[in-house]
Amino acid sequence: METILTSPTQTVRIGPDHPFVIIGERINPTGRKLLAAQMAAWNFDRVRNDSLAQVAAGARMLDVNAGIPLADEPAILVEAIRVVQSVVEVPLSIDSSIVKALEAGLNAYQGKPLVNSVTAEEERLEAVLPLIARHKAAVIGIANDETGISEDANVRFQIAKKIVLRAESYGIPREDVLIDPLAMPVGAVRYAGATLFTLVRRLREELGVNACCGASNISFGLPDRPALNAAFLAMAIASGMNCAITNALEPEMKKSILAADVMMGHDENCATWLGTHRAAQGDAAGADAGAAARAARRERRSARQ
Amino acid sequence: METILTSPTQTVRIGPDHPFVIIGERINPTGRKLLAAQMAAWNFDRVRNDSLAQVAAGARMLDVNAGIPLADEPAILVEAIRVVQSVVEVPLSIDSSIVKALEAGLNAYQGKPLVNSVTAEEERLEAVLPLIARHKAAVIGIANDETGISEDANVRFQIAKKIVLRAESYGIPREDVLIDPLAMPVGAVRYAGATLFTLVRRLREELGVNACCGASNISFGLPDRPALNAAFLAMAIASGMNCAITNALEPEMKKSILAADVMMGHDENCATWLGTHRAAQGDAAGADAGAAARAARRERRSARQ
Repeated sequence: METILTSPTQTVRIGPDHPFVIIGERINPTGRKLLAAQMAAWNFDRVRNDSLAQVAAGARMLDVNAGIPLADEPAILVEAIRVVQSVVEVPLSIDSSIVKALEAGLNAYQGKPLVNSVTAEEERLEAVLPLIARHKAAVIGIANDETGISEDANVRFQIAKKIVLRAESYGIPREDVLIDPLAMPVGAVRYAGATLFTLVRRLREELGVNACCGASNISFGLPDRPALNAAFLAMAIASGMNCAITNALEPEMKKSILAADVMMGHDENCATWLGTHRAAQGDAAGADAGAAARAARRERRSARQ
Repeated sequence: METILTSPTQTVRIGPDHPFVIIGERINPTGRKLLAAQMAAWNFDRVRNDSLAQVAAGARMLDVNAGIPLADEPAILVEAIRVVQSVVEVPLSIDSSIVKALEAGLNAYQGKPLVNSVTAEEERLEAVLPLIARHKAAVIGIANDETGISEDANVRFQIAKKIVLRAESYGIPREDVLIDPLAMPVGAVRYAGATLFTLVRRLREELGVNACCGASNISFGLPDRPALNAAFLAMAIASGMNCAITNALEPEMKKSILAADVMMGHDENCATWLGTHRAAQGDAAGADAGAAARAARRERRSARQ
């Protein structure tokens, strides 16, 4: 079962036979004061730079969020999407909790986007799913409802199932619904990781849907978070997770994802692993050459003195 | 289902509700010329040092192998076991392909050891299993037989099942059989990782047995092996792997295992993770303090000159 997202020039396939897809999380003003101030002032320099940097680091899609308090979110989201699509070619995830903003974003987007997100709350389902159906987009369904986030994997599975079935009732095919099983902090909820792995496996085996999650919440409050996130991602991939909205610039997580792709047999001939290794060696050799040149210049200067 | 191994003073429990157990792999003369020469000359200094270093690095058990061509393997294995048990308290895995050596080792060992290993070859089963039963030991069953190692997960599962059932026919309970599903190099066999994860899950769900494997063969021939092994181990743990015979001294693998324990909910209150982090910070602070002291001594020397 493949989820297909497109831009005018690129197609991204998410599914159990494909490499893991990193959706870059950086274009999100939540907790980023400078980015929020710029976007509110209609300055998209950081949006542009963050787009280029994330794609250069390996993000195959970018999440775009314009949630700034008191600002005109629909208008800013539309402009952010326009700007991002003008500088990079990857498909986007349109991220908002405001239905009007999602609608404006869907109208502005060129291609088939992912929409982030809908919960199983009745009001959200009835507002968001018709939009997804009309625009033939794909959507992330989040496994919580009016009762909050259950710690019981079975409850969360039933909530995910409700989203998938309701989407189908609107004519949205199952492959266009990605479920986010919700990673809770393992420092506070001991079995948060184990529950999520079980849930991802059941989503695959019983509902046949793809799964997507944030990949840093799991380590909230603990030291050495990149190492925890790296192990979490590899384990989630082994359980059937297909993509994550995460920081493409974090090297430990990136390496773990590439290694996990090798282990799943999704990196044919280990080509991406070998290519990444060679590129890193090239950078190191470049740095060594630079250091050698600098040392040579210093020696020449000393000799002249 | 718990596999319990003991020394005179320690008990190690291997199973789905327990932290992952690292069995240190270093006391093995295969490919280690100096160690082989020492052991053949009845010098056990390296054996002693390797024992202490591996336990200090977090190995909860040690594998002991004395396979040296043309040497008296049973006698050397017995002495190695005696030496290791005199310097560390962890339970051991007695490792030999020679039945006489296993028998001598079992007679010498103090406690309930693991025996490494038996395959599903008829001759091996009939020679090794009676020994295991008589000594009430536990054994690693390797999922290959006279036909070699199948790339088909289903064939390997049936071979594992044969070992488990045959062991039961000798009165060896299922919890005393650990299955090694065999990690083949993913660089040569594209789905080696995926096959192994499936197999580990089936061993747990259908046979109810614990699983153990070597953790470095998977990355054979590829660059940046520690990163691949680290991801592999986390993924194997998510699939239900309980222990591995591996290099306890390799920091990336060690960290990945501890992170995976946190993610499985096996590190209560994240106590081991937090303790390891604090110890690492303490080491770093100690190193800084040492550097500062050295710098101060240099300054005093300069002042005197």
